Amino acid sequence: MRLAVIPGDGIGPEVIAEALKVLGEVVPNAEITRYDLGAARWHATGELLPESVLGELRQHDAILLGAVGDPSVPSGILERGLLLRLRFELDHHVNLRPARLYPGVRSPVAEPGEIDMVVVREGTEGLYAGNGGLLRKDTPHEIATEVSINTSFGVERVVRDAFARAANRPRKHLTLVHKTNVLTHAGSLWSRVVEEVSLQYPDVTVAYQHIDAATIHMVTDPSRFDVIVTDNLFGDILTDLAAAVTGGIGLAASGNLDVTKRHPSMFEPVHGSAPDIAGQGVADPTAAVLSVALMLDHLGEHESARRIEASVAFDLATRDHTHPGATYAIGDRLAALVSSNTAARAEA
Amino acid sequence: MRLAVIPGDGIGPEVIAEALKVLGEVVPNAEITRYDLGAARWHATGELLPESVLGELRQHDAILLGAVGDPSVPSGILERGLLLRLRFELDHHVNLRPARLYPGVRSPVAEPGEIDMVVVREGTEGLYAGNGGLLRKDTPHEIATEVSINTSFGVERVVRDAFARAANRPRKHLTLVHKTNVLTHAGSLWSRVVEEVSLQYPDVTVAYQHIDAATIHMVTDPSRFDVIVTDNLFGDILTDLAAAVTGGIGLAASGNLDVTKRHPSMFEPVHGSAPDIAGQGVADPTAAVLSVALMLDHLGEHESARRIEASVAFDLATRDHTHPGATYAIGDRLAALVSSNTAARAEA
Ligand SMILES: CC(C)[C@H](C(=O)O)[C@@H](O)C(=O)O
Ligand SMILES: CC(C)[C@H](C(=O)O)[C@@H](O)C(=O)O
Repeated sequence: MRLAVIPGDGIGPEVIAEALKVLGEVVPNAEITRYDLGAARWHATGELLPESVLGELRQHDAILLGAVGDPSVPSGILERGLLLRLRFELDHHVNLRPARLYPGVRSPVAEPGEIDMVVVREGTEGLYAGNGGLLRKDTPHEIATEVSINTSFGVERVVRDAFARAANRPRKHLTLVHKTNVLTHAGSLWSRVVEEVSLQYPDVTVAYQHIDAATIHMVTDPSRFDVIVTDNLFGDILTDLAAAVTGGIGLAASGNLDVTKRHPSMFEPVHGSAPDIAGQGVADPTAAVLSVALMLDHLGEHESARRIEASVAFDLATRDHTHPGATYAIGDRLAALVSSNTAARAEA
Repeated sequence: MRLAVIPGDGIGPEVIAEALKVLGEVVPNAEITRYDLGAARWHATGELLPESVLGELRQHDAILLGAVGDPSVPSGILERGLLLRLRFELDHHVNLRPARLYPGVRSPVAEPGEIDMVVVREGTEGLYAGNGGLLRKDTPHEIATEVSINTSFGVERVVRDAFARAANRPRKHLTLVHKTNVLTHAGSLWSRVVEEVSLQYPDVTVAYQHIDAATIHMVTDPSRFDVIVTDNLFGDILTDLAAAVTGGIGLAASGNLDVTKRHPSMFEPVHGSAPDIAGQGVADPTAAVLSVALMLDHLGEHESARRIEASVAFDLATRDHTHPGATYAIGDRLAALVSSNTAARAEA
């Protein structure tokens, strides 16, 4: 397994260290190359993602990313120039974000077992396309535009992926989230594609919700969701909210997938670089560890992925959530659990 | 007071009846004209908002709207053709949406008194501009676009309004919500305008949050918000979520304001036509009643507005929230409270 690791900024390197510790227990011989992309490199060299580095990244089986972003860098520079550039260049069209309420984890709005959903967020189009501009900047007649671009090609591939996932889950339920009553053009395309693909999945029940109503249901009745398919921006919003009701972004994992496997997929916790707590060793590495499980699943190492998930589930069920321990201590616990889990498997 | 009333669809007429009952207690001689716009008229005549009706509406001091929308009408027709057309034609640039957690009301995430915010949502631009289209419809090469349009003129007037409101509130705190790290063009305009206007309000503290983080804080720490200023779509999403954490959309009121008073402003509950419970007499008219209070405030009848709000607060504090009563019964209670409140005032 050839793995590219981008620890990134803030707490990124701290959580990545623990994620690799856990990975080492299931894939001891992974070939790991680190890339120092992020705020420090930009400050030092002005570089965000040099072509040569992008070329090297392409040669890996997967990319593990901590977090990018720092208050010293103007908003958008690292996001557009590095994180989103990776997602777009490597065609990460399925941004996969499961949200599950694990036993032992408190939610303000639900009981454990009541939330188990996966959001399939489109990752290469919509308002994230970077299409737009400023006209007459700094005058009283300034105009700023942002264009959401949605293509039949781009929508269909994520909708197909979402239906396939729904068909493989016990509840077989898919919800399209959009704002079809206002964004009538994009809404029409998304609705028609969902309707068309649904014909091939007679077992999957289909629902629709406007994004505003979906946020209400996410806090009043999250158990109604199984698979959600939605566009890039709505997915961004909904998955942060889904994380908030399932224990917080300290636990939320994500995969940026090229499901065709033409390019390496990239795995990252949903949380950011959290500069306010960086360097203190208190960040929760669980989201990064769960992102490793998503990575292993994507690479076909399902048993290892299940082992990591089971270890996380055990730790969350038994964890003192007010004092979960330092970053390294959580990593140590999870690594030990995975290791004993691995040993037990080997014996059996 | 010349008042145009659009009861609309579903539970719209039911809640409007109670709102007018309460209004009658403070403004007994309001001149009320009803307009039968909505699903039924569209089905019968194909009309959404005839020019002649729009002309008549313009002659009023304010418009009170129940809700529009019906499953029998394709998504977007009534929204774009009637509701949004009114907001745009009448230049309702400040979409004002207070969210307060009243004593007696249970929130999944906060204690009464902990939430008291007002969202100033831009109402005439952004992704709601209706700018976009479909190319190569129904082919594998289809493209759907939606354009968010933001002007210096449009952003500045709502930001100014939001700062003025913040300056008049005890906490004097304003939060801009956007997604500046991805929507860099529009985000740049919004950020610069907030920075500029803030110079004239040295007493108002200013914060910024990305929309995704804002939804997290809305459920983990809503008390941090005082005045929120944001664009049309983010405001739509945030205000539904704010309603969800302050007792639900049955209580959420809104005003679509032309703060220059060149055109009549329009007041409506945040909830929709709720076809699932329409005709049963069980809809909560409180949001419509609170919208009347917003209307009276806008028309300078502050004392009457306070009287209605106090009556709602009293009713919510003493209400059996599992059995709040039928629509008409809640309306009767609120009207009686306002009336005795009015009598007490008159005596004093
Ligand atoms: C950092 C930002 C560009 C990113 C996004 O908006 O996609 C983040 O919020 C996420 O959800 O991964
Ligand atoms: C019905 C719809 C067009 C409307 C909106 O999106 O503004 C509604 O959700 C609201 O918030 O008033």
